[in-house]
Order: sequence, then structure tokens, then C-alpha cells
Amino acid sequence: MKNFEFKNPTKIIFGKGEIQKIAAEIPADAKVLLLYGGGSIKKNGIYEQVKTALKDFEVEEFGGIPANPEYAILMQALEVIKEKEITFLLAVGGGSVLDGTKFLSSAAEYTGDNPWDILDKKIRTLKGMPFGTVLTLPATGSEMNSGAVITRAETKQKLVMGGPGLFPVFSILDPTVVRSIPERQIANGLADAFTHVLEQYMTYPVGALLQDRIAESILQTLIEVAPVILKDPTDYKAASNFMWSCTMALNGLIQKGVPTDWAIHMMGHELTALYGIDHARTLAILAGSHYTYNLETKKEKLAQYANRVWGVREGSMEERAKIGIEKTVAFFHSIGIKTKLSEYTKDYQGTGSEIARRLTERGMIALGEHGTLTPSDAEKIVELAY
Amino acid sequence: MKNFEFKNPTKIIFGKGEIQKIAAEIPADAKVLLLYGGGSIKKNGIYEQVKTALKDFEVEEFGGIPANPEYAILMQALEVIKEKEITFLLAVGGGSVLDGTKFLSSAAEYTGDNPWDILDKKIRTLKGMPFGTVLTLPATGSEMNSGAVITRAETKQKLVMGGPGLFPVFSILDPTVVRSIPERQIANGLADAFTHVLEQYMTYPVGALLQDRIAESILQTLIEVAPVILKDPTDYKAASNFMWSCTMALNGLIQKGVPTDWAIHMMGHELTALYGIDHARTLAILAGSHYTYNLETKKEKLAQYANRVWGVREGSMEERAKIGIEKTVAFFHSIGIKTKLSEYTKDYQGTGSEIARRLTERGMIALGEHGTLTPSDAEKIVELAY
Repeated sequence: MKNFEFKNPTKIIFGKGEIQKIAAEIPADAKVLLLYGGGSIKKNGIYEQVKTALKDFEVEEFGGIPANPEYAILMQALEVIKEKEITFLLAVGGGSVLDGTKFLSSAAEYTGDNPWDILDKKIRTLKGMPFGTVLTLPATGSEMNSGAVITRAETKQKLVMGGPGLFPVFSILDPTVVRSIPERQIANGLADAFTHVLEQYMTYPVGALLQDRIAESILQTLIEVAPVILKDPTDYKAASNFMWSCTMALNGLIQKGVPTDWAIHMMGHELTALYGIDHARTLAILAGSHYTYNLETKKEKLAQYANRVWGVREGSMEERAKIGIEKTVAFFHSIGIKTKLSEYTKDYQGTGSEIARRLTERGMIALGEHGTLTPSDAEKIVELAY
Repeated sequence: MKNFEFKNPTKIIFGKGEIQKIAAEIPADAKVLLLYGGGSIKKNGIYEQVKTALKDFEVEEFGGIPANPEYAILMQALEVIKEKEITFLLAVGGGSVLDGTKFLSSAAEYTGDNPWDILDKKIRTLKGMPFGTVLTLPATGSEMNSGAVITRAETKQKLVMGGPGLFPVFSILDPTVVRSIPERQIANGLADAFTHVLEQYMTYPVGALLQDRIAESILQTLIEVAPVILKDPTDYKAASNFMWSCTMALNGLIQKGVPTDWAIHMMGHELTALYGIDHARTLAILAGSHYTYNLETKKEKLAQYANRVWGVREGSMEERAKIGIEKTVAFFHSIGIKTKLSEYTKDYQGTGSEIARRLTERGMIALGEHGTLTPSDAEKIVELAY
């Protein structure tokens, strides 16, 4: 096991009917900015619940934060924060609204000239404006971590940011929100959380026995609930386990003491920036080819995964590893997600070299848990996914 | 899954050689009270490492906190805190030193007349004096939770306390400390952590699929490392997984969203108060008889445990449940822990009724996850363990 530090101060309030608890978690004298996305919260009743809970606060609103939260739009929200002297942010939405709010939390306290530097110059946020979240879409884990991904259309960039100042003060996770999520988004959430676990687990063994088993627990739970929740999103047992699994997949716990990969995400972000493919689907496109390309360095963990998660008991380590990859791809198919780039765009030729070029441009020339994957390797991995 | 709230702000610093990081975690102007136990830290080099790390701080010391931290001794430490105007506590030791420090953290900020009231009147601690820990004995999980158990010899009482103000600010977990722990104490740590998981898991199913699997992960890891660490406590892989498993067993995570039992602990505390039997061994004495007595209400989880943790695939639910109990008792035996009260004391006759009497006296008349176990049930459970 590698040495590690772990601290996660976010307060989780989990369960049906808990949105009304918001009021007790926000300072009484706060001036709140309520942030949300395209307005689905106005159709499913969550907006009303939040507004009722906030009735004793001074509240401003900023809606319209899009999927892949866009820098230019967030800069408009930043103006509202400054103009209205906001002191507390409340994100109500999925990962995009939460990530956008994290950028605003950081930017509101940033003393430099250009908030874009937070992303472009990788400035870690030690202290942000306090914020809470009401999660409406289980997927990214943003509700209990300190990272965010922000997109800038102008430059086709999708960059990560983070720091210990960006944990939500609280997050409310009411699994009944799942019933109003479109099937496509539920599938995306399942694929996103599943791949989050894989990125932290599918590397090489370092004797982190407990972390491995907890990672496998999350994968097993997602596999168990996936068909149930897709068939019936009102199934509370499935919805609650889906929601808590998504949070646990990326709250920092399972990455502690182990090497992590994240190459799938780095390449996937570029696919989204290029073609607008849903984030989770870019991960599903790349996972199989990434593991196939890196079979030699990952086969011990792939075989362990095939054995413990999928019950594959027969065959050599390499054979089991390959079955593990097949099972992963089949899982994505089982939740209705296609895994070939050509199934998403006709313009896929040349994508490998374009992604290699973009990774090089960003200095991402040493990806993966060993830091040995070059842009040229990324090119081949993407090509395997055509 | 039941509704829950979860917040754990303790910073964990895990790994070999990390004790030197203490200095960066304590406020520069702090006046520190270093608390420890019987002095083993002076033999194994930990005291020196801590003192070196604290060289730039003003430090007072208080040694001699015994196993089952004794109220009368802690009251002496409280005098030192007040006299020397201490502002930060540093516990270096096992669960007893950590628990004693939690009592002091609370008592130092307590404004009532009699600090005993914190225990006797179950006053929750909302704010305590800040404290950190350096763990020298993996077992209780005290390093990452907000609970403590304090003993008062005068009245043969062993009472619990806690509250959100009692999380350590930081805890340093260096698995190399395990090499200097006597075998008896390692076995105690394994049994303690194992039973902590069981108390939060062995109830009835509520559809908390992920929590169940994470609990099973900790049990499986403890089972895997137990023989290795007992044979060779210098085995870092086993020691680090043992240590992290003990922390994860009682840091609040696996109890969220599920019913919990804790009857074994309530009865076990009385056995320690009566006969001075090591805490962990009281749990091992009672676990088998508790589960046998409550087979009917716990058989679904017992059977699931037998299947997933011990690989028992054959037989009816009840048969598998019974094998699960046998496997548990055999596990305690495998780590050298006896499981009959008569193996610890010749004066065991009448213990059942005495424990029933004491539980009644404390108002503990509704134990277990259903709140249906009376002192009369406890009497029978203890008698089954003779």
C-alpha cells in the first residue's frame, strides 16, 4: 500500500424527503445564489422543494448552466455573485451544475486578474466561497469531492481544477430524484461511476487489499442495480444504491494508497470537446481499447476483476484478463451504450492523431499509472476504438 | 436503505515514516499536551519520533493512561490542561489513550460543575479542545470517529460518550508500529475490528447493497491478513491492511443507512468492568452466543455472510446461517482467542443475572437492532457463553 492522506469534510444528507434540511445547513445571514441547469428541476418538483426550504433566506438565481459547464456562461454568473454580494452558493443539479459551482466558488475568492488562469495555470483552490449541493443526477461524484471539469467552447478545451477548498459544505442526496431522470442519463451515470472505479482500480497490485475489495464492491453494486434501475427508476432500493455508489466511486476513498490511471478520462475529455459526445459515453468508447492496448501492464488486476466481480474462475491470468475486458464492454452494451467511436460520428477518421496532437499541446505526454503512455500510444488506443 | 447523515472531517495521514508530519498539522502557537499510556512508546522509538517532530512547540506530557481509560487518572490530566493552559492535545497510543484524550477534549471545554456528567448524563460534545492522534495499536477505530468509552473503577462503570466535536483533527497511521505490538494485542485488534463490522452488519437486510459489500470487504481483508500479521508483524502489506481495516471498521461509513446492533458491546463492557477481561475478548466470548440466541431475526444476514465472506454455498438459509456462526467462532480461535467465559474466570456462575441487573440499572432494557432484547435476554446470551 502506498502512503496517503485522506480528508473529506463534506456532510452527506442522504434519503427521501431530505431536501427540506437545506435551511439548517446554510448560515442564517447568508445571501444565497441558487444555481441550476436547463430547467428540468422546475418540472420535477425539486425547484419548488428547494425554494420552500430557502424561504427565510435572501436568494438570487442563475439558471442555464449547460452540460459540460461553459466558461463564458459561468463568467456571467460570477458577475451576479459580485454584483449581488453573494456569500453562499447552492448548486441544484447534476455534475455539470456542481462543477460549474465549484469554479464559481474558486473564482469568487480568486484575487488574480483572469479567472481562466485557475484552469489554464492549474491553480489549486485552498479556499473557495462556501457552497452546498442538491444532487439531481447520480454520476460524477462531484457532490463529495473537490474536483471539477470546465469547458471553454471558444478554444474547444475541457480542463480540470480542484483543491481542498472545493469540497461542498453539504450535499443532499435524495434518491427519489432518479425517477425523473431520462433513461439515457441514468445509463450515463452508471457508465460514469463504473469507469471512475476502473480508473482507480485497473492498474497493478500494490497490496492494497481493502481498497481493491471496496472498489470491487462498488462495481458489483452498480452491476446489480443497473438493469433494475433502467427498467424501473422508481425502485427505491436500486435508486438509493445507484446514488450512493456514484458518490463512493469518486469521493477519494478508493484512490487512497493505490496508483491511479485516468488516461481514459484524459482522452475522453478530448472526444467530448471535439464531437460533443456525452462524457460517460466517451469513457465507454475508450475503456475496452485502453485495457486491450495495456493488457500486459494491467493483466493481474484485470484477471482479479474478472474473477471477483464477474465470477470468472477458469483460464490463465491472461485469458481471465481478456474475459474481464469483454465483460466490461458487454456491461456498457447491456445498459444501452455503444462502445465504438464510429457509432457516434462519421468523421472519426483521423481522431487518433488529432487527440495525440491535443494531448501534446497540453503537455499530457505521460499518461497512465506508470506515466509511460505517450500521445502516440493514445493515438493507437483511440484508433482501436474506431 | 435508511436515510442517513454522514460527515467525518478527520484528516488521515497514512504510511511509513509519516509521524514527522505532525508539526505541520498543529497550530504554530499551540501549547501541546502529549498524552500516552504505560510507556511502551518509549521502548519502540515512537516517543522519540514524536518529540523530534514537536521540537518547535511548547509541550507538556501526561503518561500513564491505562487500558480502559480510568476517570480518576484522566481528572489528573484535566488539572494539567487547566494549570498549563494547554490549547492542543496529542494522543500517542492505542484506543484507550485516544478515548481518554477525547474525554479530556470534551471536559476541557465543558462548562458544567462535574465532568462525570458528560458520561453519566450522556451529554453530547458539540465542541471540544482540538486534538490529534498518533495511533500505535490498530483496533478500536477511535482515530477516525467521535466516540469514546471511559471506565470508572470506583463504581465499576464503563460508559460511552461522543458528539460531532470529538473527531480528531488529524490521525497519523504508520503501519510499522505494528511490529512492536505484542501478539496478544494484535489478536485483540483483529477481534475488535472484526466485531465492530459484525455489530453494524449482522442485523437484517434493508437493501443497503453497497454498505453490505463494503462491510464484507473489511471482514474478508481481516480474515486474509490475520494469519500473516500474527506470524510476522513486520509484514508491511499485512500490517497496512490490518491498520486501515480497523479504521474503516468504525469510522461511521458502514453503519450509514443500515440498522446496527451493538448489544455485544453493551454486554461486553460489563464483562470488562466485572472481570477486567480485555475488551476484544469479551466481544469474542459473546458473539457466537448472541448470534445463536438471535438466529431467527438475523438468519438472512448470517447466511449472506456465510456465503460471501466464507464461501458457504450449500444448505438452507438456516444451515448456512449456523455455519456462519461456527466460522466466526473458529476465526477467533484461529487468532488464539478463547470464546468461553469459563476460560477467563472461575467465578462465571451468576454472571448472566449480574449483567442483566447492571443493564437494568443503566436503563439498557431494549438492546439490539430491533430494541427488543431485554436484560433477561442478555442473561441468557451470557449464560450461553459460559
